[in-house]
Amino acid sequence: MISTISEKIRQAQAILAERKVDCWLTFVRETSSISDPALELILGTNVVWPSAFIIAANGKAVAIVGSLDVQNIKDHAPYEVVGYVDSIREALRSTLECMNPRRIAINYSTADVMADGLTFGMHKLLIEYLEGTPFARRFESSEPVVTALRSRKSASEIEAVRSAVDETLSIFGEVTRFLKPGLTEKDVAEFILKRTKEQSLEPAWDPESCPAVFTGPESAGAHAMPTARTMEPGHLMNIDFGVRKNGYVSDLQRTWYFLKKGETQAPADVRKGFTTIRDAIRRSAEALKPGVEGRAVDKIARDLITSAGYSEYPHALGHQVGRKAHDGGGLLAPNWERYKNLPFMKVEAEQVYTLEPRLTVEGRGVATVEEIVVVTENGCRFLSSPQEELICIEFRER
Amino acid sequence: MISTISEKIRQAQAILAERKVDCWLTFVRETSSISDPALELILGTNVVWPSAFIIAANGKAVAIVGSLDVQNIKDHAPYEVVGYVDSIREALRSTLECMNPRRIAINYSTADVMADGLTFGMHKLLIEYLEGTPFARRFESSEPVVTALRSRKSASEIEAVRSAVDETLSIFGEVTRFLKPGLTEKDVAEFILKRTKEQSLEPAWDPESCPAVFTGPESAGAHAMPTARTMEPGHLMNIDFGVRKNGYVSDLQRTWYFLKKGETQAPADVRKGFTTIRDAIRRSAEALKPGVEGRAVDKIARDLITSAGYSEYPHALGHQVGRKAHDGGGLLAPNWERYKNLPFMKVEAEQVYTLEPRLTVEGRGVATVEEIVVVTENGCRFLSSPQEELICIEFRER
Repeated sequence: MISTISEKIRQAQAILAERKVDCWLTFVRETSSISDPALELILGTNVVWPSAFIIAANGKAVAIVGSLDVQNIKDHAPYEVVGYVDSIREALRSTLECMNPRRIAINYSTADVMADGLTFGMHKLLIEYLEGTPFARRFESSEPVVTALRSRKSASEIEAVRSAVDETLSIFGEVTRFLKPGLTEKDVAEFILKRTKEQSLEPAWDPESCPAVFTGPESAGAHAMPTARTMEPGHLMNIDFGVRKNGYVSDLQRTWYFLKKGETQAPADVRKGFTTIRDAIRRSAEALKPGVEGRAVDKIARDLITSAGYSEYPHALGHQVGRKAHDGGGLLAPNWERYKNLPFMKVEAEQVYTLEPRLTVEGRGVATVEEIVVVTENGCRFLSSPQEELICIEFRER
Repeated sequence: MISTISEKIRQAQAILAERKVDCWLTFVRETSSISDPALELILGTNVVWPSAFIIAANGKAVAIVGSLDVQNIKDHAPYEVVGYVDSIREALRSTLECMNPRRIAINYSTADVMADGLTFGMHKLLIEYLEGTPFARRFESSEPVVTALRSRKSASEIEAVRSAVDETLSIFGEVTRFLKPGLTEKDVAEFILKRTKEQSLEPAWDPESCPAVFTGPESAGAHAMPTARTMEPGHLMNIDFGVRKNGYVSDLQRTWYFLKKGETQAPADVRKGFTTIRDAIRRSAEALKPGVEGRAVDKIARDLITSAGYSEYPHALGHQVGRKAHDGGGLLAPNWERYKNLPFMKVEAEQVYTLEPRLTVEGRGVATVEEIVVVTENGCRFLSSPQEELICIEFRER
């Protein structure tokens, strides 16, 4: 664990130097109750008392933590560790005075949740502790630093995501063999969670909606818990699921169709829906490469779907994936107010994105597929073996 | 689940009315990446897009959430749910305009982590969304509201903690039978985690340090991971451990002594250390009742320990326990800067506290016991059957 953390701390120092930011300050407490998302990259454990992690462009890395946390921090990460008993104030002030940074990045961002781990109360406390010094006036958002640190995946990070993708596709294969008309969304979700546990894997996000299972025209759409709704002939069913393996996750979707009695293939309206999704993924993947803005890639999939006569999907085409299913940074998203500046960020090599367009086939349900790709020097490469065909489940009498 | 959440939302409305605060606004996004600790009380699930949960003293409760989250919120909690696609701005402004609250509590606190779930970036966003309205000027800290809501345990909440306590004590009993000289801290931690899993329980906090196992004079003290250090005759060993059961946790410590060859009881220095801890718990429990300040209770245990010639413990005597092991609110703590106003808060009936003094016996290790008590009308009652005797492990040849 220390080696990955060391790698990320060194990477952070290089990014700080590149951006001419002198140091990056992460200020947290009781992180098992509320944790700054940056901590999993640069610490990998929890602290109890107010703690400051200061990473500097010049190669220094100092952790100021409560005395009872000192040993645990030393066990986890290569910081110069300073312990305190009564208050962090003096050690924090003297460390900053000694470094005298002109630009100090702190963790807030209106756009990127992964760079917004400083709470409002902790910010107040920081200002209070630094009263009379010039440091609070030197604060700026760490968003560009955190985004670069999280987005730029090393070869071993990409390999870890691919391995989580493989596990997920293998479980989807088992689901296909398990499916039959009459099963409920809950039955399928339970089967997937059971298999996940048996493989010693964890769900990639909240197990309440991981997997999310949606069947038929009445299904909620997304981000909802599996219900007692049954799989019926003539309906589409889709699953949104991922696993965590060695700290990295997958996030994938597949779509199935339940054949009616006598059907040997899905009817034309269902096939058209699935083909439209498959093509939206192909076309947008062809456009994904370093230097393009995320919104341009989203637009290709979105336009293809609306041109085919469907409503546009009410979300982004894709997000980054890494330690978290929603790993922050630039998005392949439309220019909607809620996405802030994220759709305007330029795609970079070594970023890992989902591609997940969606459409509704009237009276059938939702067709949606989610693949994972890594951006290369001049294009992108699929980490998931893409779903090229709708998976049809044969009719059975119940 | 909805019934507990409904109970807590109604309780929040009563607390708001009592404190003459018109509404309480919780503003969050991507809560699986970083969650406001208040959400587990008033929602019990996650949201993806920026979301506002507005609970009003007049009995209203409105959730404004992204369209894909609508169904999930309806499944979990009794809010009037408003969905949006592009931006939360308009729905948020019109909901507040319609309510026109004069006092609006938002989740920030320099002192209480459980009331400090609003991030600095989300606060900026809120100010931006409410520009041109009077509402941002009406913000105040929700700390008193959140603290009261979390601290006042219902009978069913107290019962849930007691049940988690019973499970933990039962596992401690198994540990006593498992112990022998030569085992490492890691061996004991693995045994405990295995038994926890077999009982379908979860560790109460980060499993890396739950249980925390410390043996001998060189042990780190607290908040550290179990090591390969072995249990040796003549040494003290202590464990800090708790389980989560039905959403509520325990947090307990016990101390063991490894007898040397020929010893039939612990030597005098070890017995004195344990007895001092036991008495510190007894005396402080006798003083714990509604109306006293937490620091007065801490002082009793602290003074008793220093009078007996030991160094004072570098932490609080006790914290509240509930859904979290460190459940926020007032502390039984000394007046140290890092505890802010929490040691000055008055103890109230229905609060659940730990009592956990600690001392070091030179050359032996740490003696520490942690019990859990609930405050009653005129005193307190132990939820844990207290450790009255040092548990001695017989000498065995290896």
